[in-house]
Amino acid sequence: MRPTYFATGNERELFRAAHERNLPVMLKGPTGCGKTRFVEAMAEELGRPLITLACNEDLTVADLVGRFLIHDGQTQWVDGPLTRAVRTGAICYLDEIVEARQDTTVVIHPLTDHRRILVIDRTAEVILPADGFQLVVSYNPGYQSVLKDLKESTRQRMVAISFDYPDEQVEVEIIRDETGIDEPSARHLVAIGSAIRRVDAHGLKEVASTRTLVTAAHLCTAGISLYEAATAAIAEPLTDDRALNVALTELIAANTINGAAHP
Amino acid sequence: MRPTYFATGNERELFRAAHERNLPVMLKGPTGCGKTRFVEAMAEELGRPLITLACNEDLTVADLVGRFLIHDGQTQWVDGPLTRAVRTGAICYLDEIVEARQDTTVVIHPLTDHRRILVIDRTAEVILPADGFQLVVSYNPGYQSVLKDLKESTRQRMVAISFDYPDEQVEVEIIRDETGIDEPSARHLVAIGSAIRRVDAHGLKEVASTRTLVTAAHLCTAGISLYEAATAAIAEPLTDDRALNVALTELIAANTINGAAHP
Amino acid sequence: MRPTYFATGNERELFRAAHERNLPVMLKGPTGCGKTRFVEAMAEELGRPLITLACNEDLTVADLVGRFLIHDGQTQWVDGPLTRAVRTGAICYLDEIVEARQDTTVVIHPLTDHRRILVIDRTAEVILPADGFQLVVSYNPGYQSVLKDLKESTRQRMVAISFDYPDEQVEVEIIRDETGIDEPSARHLVAIGSAIRRVDAHGLKEVASTRTLVTAAHLCTAGISLYEAATAAIAEPLTDDRALNVALTELIAANTINGAAHP
Amino acid sequence: MRPTYFATGNERELFRAAHERNLPVMLKGPTGCGKTRFVEAMAEELGRPLITLACNEDLTVADLVGRFLIHDGQTQWVDGPLTRAVRTGAICYLDEIVEARQDTTVVIHPLTDHRRILVIDRTAEVILPADGFQLVVSYNPGYQSVLKDLKESTRQRMVAISFDYPDEQVEVEIIRDETGIDEPSARHLVAIGSAIRRVDAHGLKEVASTRTLVTAAHLCTAGISLYEAATAAIAEPLTDDRALNVALTELIAANTINGAAHP
Amino acid sequence: MRPTYFATGNERELFRAAHERNLPVMLKGPTGCGKTRFVEAMAEELGRPLITLACNEDLTVADLVGRFLIHDGQTQWVDGPLTRAVRTGAICYLDEIVEARQDTTVVIHPLTDHRRILVIDRTAEVILPADGFQLVVSYNPGYQSVLKDLKESTRQRMVAISFDYPDEQVEVEIIRDETGIDEPSARHLVAIGSAIRRVDAHGLKEVASTRTLVTAAHLCTAGISLYEAATAAIAEPLTDDRALNVALTELIAANTINGAAHP
Amino acid sequence: MRPTYFATGNERELFRAAHERNLPVMLKGPTGCGKTRFVEAMAEELGRPLITLACNEDLTVADLVGRFLIHDGQTQWVDGPLTRAVRTGAICYLDEIVEARQDTTVVIHPLTDHRRILVIDRTAEVILPADGFQLVVSYNPGYQSVLKDLKESTRQRMVAISFDYPDEQVEVEIIRDETGIDEPSARHLVAIGSAIRRVDAHGLKEVASTRTLVTAAHLCTAGISLYEAATAAIAEPLTDDRALNVALTELIAANTINGAAHP
Repeated sequence: MRPTYFATGNERELFRAAHERNLPVMLKGPTGCGKTRFVEAMAEELGRPLITLACNEDLTVADLVGRFLIHDGQTQWVDGPLTRAVRTGAICYLDEIVEARQDTTVVIHPLTDHRRILVIDRTAEVILPADGFQLVVSYNPGYQSVLKDLKESTRQRMVAISFDYPDEQVEVEIIRDETGIDEPSARHLVAIGSAIRRVDAHGLKEVASTRTLVTAAHLCTAGISLYEAATAAIAEPLTDDRALNVALTELIAANTINGAAHP
Repeated sequence: MRPTYFATGNERELFRAAHERNLPVMLKGPTGCGKTRFVEAMAEELGRPLITLACNEDLTVADLVGRFLIHDGQTQWVDGPLTRAVRTGAICYLDEIVEARQDTTVVIHPLTDHRRILVIDRTAEVILPADGFQLVVSYNPGYQSVLKDLKESTRQRMVAISFDYPDEQVEVEIIRDETGIDEPSARHLVAIGSAIRRVDAHGLKEVASTRTLVTAAHLCTAGISLYEAATAAIAEPLTDDRALNVALTELIAANTINGAAHP
Repeated sequence: MRPTYFATGNERELFRAAHERNLPVMLKGPTGCGKTRFVEAMAEELGRPLITLACNEDLTVADLVGRFLIHDGQTQWVDGPLTRAVRTGAICYLDEIVEARQDTTVVIHPLTDHRRILVIDRTAEVILPADGFQLVVSYNPGYQSVLKDLKESTRQRMVAISFDYPDEQVEVEIIRDETGIDEPSARHLVAIGSAIRRVDAHGLKEVASTRTLVTAAHLCTAGISLYEAATAAIAEPLTDDRALNVALTELIAANTINGAAHP
Repeated sequence: MRPTYFATGNERELFRAAHERNLPVMLKGPTGCGKTRFVEAMAEELGRPLITLACNEDLTVADLVGRFLIHDGQTQWVDGPLTRAVRTGAICYLDEIVEARQDTTVVIHPLTDHRRILVIDRTAEVILPADGFQLVVSYNPGYQSVLKDLKESTRQRMVAISFDYPDEQVEVEIIRDETGIDEPSARHLVAIGSAIRRVDAHGLKEVASTRTLVTAAHLCTAGISLYEAATAAIAEPLTDDRALNVALTELIAANTINGAAHP
Repeated sequence: MRPTYFATGNERELFRAAHERNLPVMLKGPTGCGKTRFVEAMAEELGRPLITLACNEDLTVADLVGRFLIHDGQTQWVDGPLTRAVRTGAICYLDEIVEARQDTTVVIHPLTDHRRILVIDRTAEVILPADGFQLVVSYNPGYQSVLKDLKESTRQRMVAISFDYPDEQVEVEIIRDETGIDEPSARHLVAIGSAIRRVDAHGLKEVASTRTLVTAAHLCTAGISLYEAATAAIAEPLTDDRALNVALTELIAANTINGAAHP
Repeated sequence: MRPTYFATGNERELFRAAHERNLPVMLKGPTGCGKTRFVEAMAEELGRPLITLACNEDLTVADLVGRFLIHDGQTQWVDGPLTRAVRTGAICYLDEIVEARQDTTVVIHPLTDHRRILVIDRTAEVILPADGFQLVVSYNPGYQSVLKDLKESTRQRMVAISFDYPDEQVEVEIIRDETGIDEPSARHLVAIGSAIRRVDAHGLKEVASTRTLVTAAHLCTAGISLYEAATAAIAEPLTDDRALNVALTELIAANTINGAAHP
C-alpha cells in the first residue's frame, strides 16, 4: 500500500492546470523532500500510468526513445520508456534531469513546445502524444554545476513548482504514517531534523531530509535507541568530517536527552 | 490547427529571396522569440515540406546523411533526414546549430557554396538537391561559447536574419491567438515580460521569452490566478537564485495588482 | 574455514535492524579494517547468500543489472549480479562504491527508497526484491575526491556504520587467529601498528592496517625475522619516500629490539 | 555550368610544375577567397578527375583509405576516396586539413615523400599511384590553433601557394560572372567589401570574403535592395556583437547612399 | 640459455616465504635493475610456470580475465592470461602495474586478500586458485604520477621488496656473463655507469641502468670502440639535451681514456 | 630506382653492430634529414626486407600485432605488420614513435630486452623472432612534448644514433642526385638552406630541411625560377607569419640575386 502524500502549498492545483493545458512541469527542491512521491500521488489522482526514469550521464537518447535490436537476424525497433509514455498517454517523470546529457534534454524540446510531437530521428517517425501524456522533470537547484545547468531553452518550456521540507507537524505525520513509530519519538526526530536545518551554514553540503528522519524512525521501530538510530541514519550519512560529526552527534544527544529514552 | 505567424520586419522578403536564389539562411535570436515558428510559416507559404532537426553534441554525420544498417544479413544504406530533404526538395531546418559537432557543420559546406551538392563519403555518392531544397539553421547568439562558436566559413555561406522579441501589441495578439485568454490579462502578462526585459542586467541569464508568457496565459485559462501563473511559468523557470526570485515575484505582484485580479 | 569476526561496537545490532526493516547499509572506514569481513560474517549470521562486487570506473549498469548477449543468433537477456541478488533475496555488497560511475549509483536509487524496486530500463522490467534482499555499500572516507564523492541523494538513503581499526587486544587475537603466530610476536606487530598510527600526521597517506599486520605475521610463520617481515609487509608498502621509509624502519627496529628476536 | 576562375598570380604555373614533378600542393588563404574553385579549375585544365574531402575531427583513416564491411557474412574491403584517387590517378583535395586528426595527416606521408606510395596497414597493401595522381590540401592560416597546427613534417613535404582576396576589378568581374548583377551594383558591393577589409583591426574575426559579396549580389538580383542585401549577407554573418554590427551597417549605408538606390 | 641471476639481499628468502604463505609480492625499483629477471629466476627455482603481462592504459579487465568471442555463431568464453595462471597454479607477473587502469587493479583484490578467489563478473564464476598460484607486480617508484599512483588498498595487500642497481663487482659479472666481453672493458663500462649515477642530480630523468651497460658491451663485442659504444648505448638514450649530452660524453671519454682503447 | 644514401658519420657501423648483436636501434634527428632513407639503405645493404609503420595516436596494438577478423562466420586471427616482421626476419621500422600510444611502445618491450620475444596476449602466443629481425624506431627530439616523451624504459633498451642535416657538399650531391638539377642552382639552394639554418633563433619552428631543398629543385627543373621555387617550396611551408615570411623571402632574394637567374 502506497503511503499518503501531504500537500504543503498550491502544488496540486498548478499540476492539475498544467496537465489540463498539456504543459510540462519542472519540480525544484532539495534531496528527499518528497518530489518523487508527489508525482506518484498526482499520477494516481489523475488516473494516469506513471513511467519514471532516473537520469544519469550514460542515459542516451536511445535509452529514452528506443533502439534497434537484432532479432532473428533482423534489425527491429523497440520503443524506449519515453516513447511508450507518449504512445500510451502516461506521465513520464525524468528524475534528476540535470544529470542527463544535453542530447537527452534536446529530444524533449519538440514534445514541450507548441509542436508537441516526439521526433524519432532514426526511424524518421513523428508521434503525436496520446491524450493524458505529460512530461515531468525534477532537479535539485543545490546540485547544479555550471556544466550541467539546465539550458534556458529547456527551462522556459516548463511550468516550475518549488518544493521545500514540510513544516514540523506535517513531517511528524509523514514519519508516523510511513513507519508506525510512536508520536513522541517522531517529534524528537523532527526536532533533530529542524535543529540540523537551522545550523545549515556550518559546512554540511545538505541538511537532514525527511527521508533520513523516516530511516531513523525505521531503526527505532526495529529496537535501536533513538540516539543510535539518529546517529546511524542522520549524522553519519550527512558528513565524513570528524568535527562536523561530533557537532551533529551532540545536537542529537541534546534533542534525545530532553524527554526521550537515551542510553 | 497551426497558430498564425506575425511578421515584425523584412524577414519574409529576405527568406523568399534566399529561397529563390538557392541560398542557405541563418536565423539569429534569443530563446523563445519565434524562430522555429517562422520557419514553419515560411515552409507553408512556399509550399515545401519541412524537416526539422534539433542539434546536439551527439548528433553525428550519420544521423544527418544516413547509415548502413544490417538487414537480412546485408549491410544496407538508409538515408538520414538531411539526405531525404535533399532528395525530395524539402526545407531542412537545423535548430540550435551551435550545439552540433563540427563534423556536422562541415558536411553542409558543399551544400551551401557554389557546388550545391551533398557528398556522402561512405557511399561515394554525390547528390544534386531537388528543386526547392533549402538549408535553414538557427542559433542563439547569447549562448555561443568560444568552443562552439559557428565557424566563419559556415557563417559566410549564409544569409543571416536577426530576430528579437515582438513589440508589445504584437505580443498581446500572439498570446491571445495561442491561448484564448482575455485581452486585459494578456496585457498584464506582456507588461510583466517587458518589465523583466528592462531589468535584464540584474543577473538573469535570459529574460522572459514570449514562450513563457504564453505558458502563463495557458495556466490562467485553466483557472490559476495571474499572479500564481506568472510565478510558476515566468519567475521560477528564469532563476534558482532566491534574491532574484524575490525581485521577480515583487515585479509580478506590482504588475498584477495594478488593474488585475490578484490574490 | 572462514576466520572469526570480532565485533567492536553496535555494528551487529544496527545491521540486523536495517536488515529487518529492509534498509540499505553503508559501511565507512579506512583500508583493511575489516569491512568486507564484517559483511561476510553478517551474511552467514542472517543465513543469506552474499554477492560481492568490487566497484570501478568501468563497471557499467549492464555489469550490474545484466545485458543482452547473442545466442543462437538471438539477442537474449542475461541477469547481472545485482539482478540475481534481487531475484534470490541475497545480500548484494558493492565494495568501494565511490569508485563506481554515477550511473551505477543511480540504478540503485529506486531499490533503496520507499519504492524498493529494481528498474531495468532496457527490458522495461520492474522487479520487486525477494525476501531477504539487502544492499550494502562500503567506501573509504579518506579516498573521496571532489569528483567521486558519493552523491547526497545516495548517502541519505542509507543507514551508515563507521568502522575503525580494532583495539590492541582484539587485533592481537585477529592476527593469531589468522596466522597461528605466537602471542609475543603478535603483540610486537600490534605495537608496531599502533606506533605507526600515532605518527599518522607525518606524511603517510594511510597508516598500517590490520591487514598489513596479518601479512607480516604470515611471513614470520614462514621463517622470516620479525624485523624483516615488518619491513617487507608494513614499511615498504606504506611509502616510497626514502626519508619516511627510514623513519618507519627505525620505528620497527625500536619495537622489535625491545623484547623480540631481532637480527 | 561552372563559373570561370580568374587567376591573380603565378598560382597556375606553380600548380602545373608541381603536378608535372609529382609534388603535393598546399593552398593557404582566408575563408571564401577561391581556393576550392582554383583546384576545380586546375583539375579541369589538367584533365584529371577531382575527389574532394572536407576534413573534420571525425574523419578517420578508414574514411580516407577504406574499411572492411560485412557483405554476405564476409568481411570485405571497400576502398575509401583517397585510395580511389590513388588507383585512378585523380587529384585528391583535402579541404581544411587542419581540421583533420593527426592520424589522417600521417597516412599521407608516404604518399608525399620520395617513396610516393599509399600504405594500407589493415590489408598490408602498398599501392603505387596511377599517373596523374596528386594530393592537394588547403587550410586557413588564421584558424590555426596550437593543437591543430599542421605538423612540420607534413608542411615540409608540400609546395605551398598563398591566396588572398582578388583585387577590386577582378572581384567585380567574379560577382557579375556568378550572379548576373549590373556593374554599378557590383562596384558598390566590392566597395563595401574593400571598406570592411580596411577596418580589419576593429574586432572582426574575419573580413568580408568574396563569397559574401556574391551572396549579397544574389539577393539583389532577387529584388532585395542593396542596403538590405549587404546587411543580411555581409554584416549579419560577420558578427553578433551589437556595436560592431552598427558600425558595419553604417559603413554599408555610406557605400550604398553614394550613388546607388538606398531605402 | 637463460643468464644467471645474481642476488643482492634477502629478496630470495622473502619471495619464498611469500610464496609459501600464498602472499602476493610487489617489486619496487628503477628501470633496468633486474626485476623481471628476478621473477624469471624465482619461477624457475620454485618450479612454477611464469605468465608475464606488460601493463598499459589499454589493458582491460577482459585482457586479464578473458572475454566472449563469437565462434560458430555462438558467444564463447575464452580465458585470459590471469585466469589461465589461476587455473594452472602459475606465477602471474604484472610488469609496470602503475601503467594499468584502476579496474585492472581492482580485479586482483579478491585474489590478494583472505578470500583468495578470482571473480569473473561476466560469467558469474568464482575460481579458487590452483596450488602454487602467486601474483607478482612491479613498478618504478620514480615514475609514479599523482593520477596513476597505486591505490593504498592494493599496496597493503602485498609483500614489498625493494630493488636497486647491483654493486660494482656484481655488475661486472652480470655484464661479462651476458655478453662475453673481456673483464677490463666490463670494468670500464661499470665505472662509466657508476660515474653517471653519482651525477644523478644534474638533470637526467634516470641514470644509466645495468641494461644500458650490457647493451654497450654487446656493441664492443661486435667491434665498436668502447667510447663509441658507450656514447650510442648509454649517453644518447639517456638524454636529448645537448648540454647534458656533452657532459655525459666527456664523462665517458674520461673513463675510457684512463686505461682503455680510445679513438 | 632508389636514390643513393650519403653517409655522414659512423651510423653505418653502429647499425651493423646492433644488427649483428640483435639490438634495437633508435634514430634521433630533425624533420627531413634522411632517417627514413638511411633505414631503407641499411635494409638493402643487409639484404633484409623492410616493413615501415608511420606511428600515430590511433595506431593500436592490434594494428601492430594483428587482430581477429570474422571470416565465414568464424573469428580468425590475422597477423599485423610487426608480427609479420618478427616471423619473417624483416627489419621493422616504427617512424615517429613518439606519436604512438604508450600501449604500442609497451608491446615492443619483450622484443627488445634479453627475452627477445613477441607476446600476443589475445592468442596467448609467444613468438621467437626469425633470424635477421630487427626493430628500428625514429623520432624528432624537437617535437617531444611532456606527455608524449618516450618512456625511459623504452629508450634504455635501444642503441641510439643521432642525425643532423648533411654538410653543404653532401647536400648539393643529394639534391643533384634526386632531381637532376644543374650544379650552380643546387649550390644556390643549399646556400639558401644554410642561411635559413643560421637564423634558426628568429621564431621559426623548424629550419629548411634537405627535403624542402629537393622540392624546390624539382620545381626549378619544371621551369619555375629559382626565386619562385624557393619561395613556394621553402619559405611558404616554413611559416604563416607575415614578418617571418618577408624575412625569408628577402633572404632567398639575396641568395638568388648573387649569381643566379632572378625575376
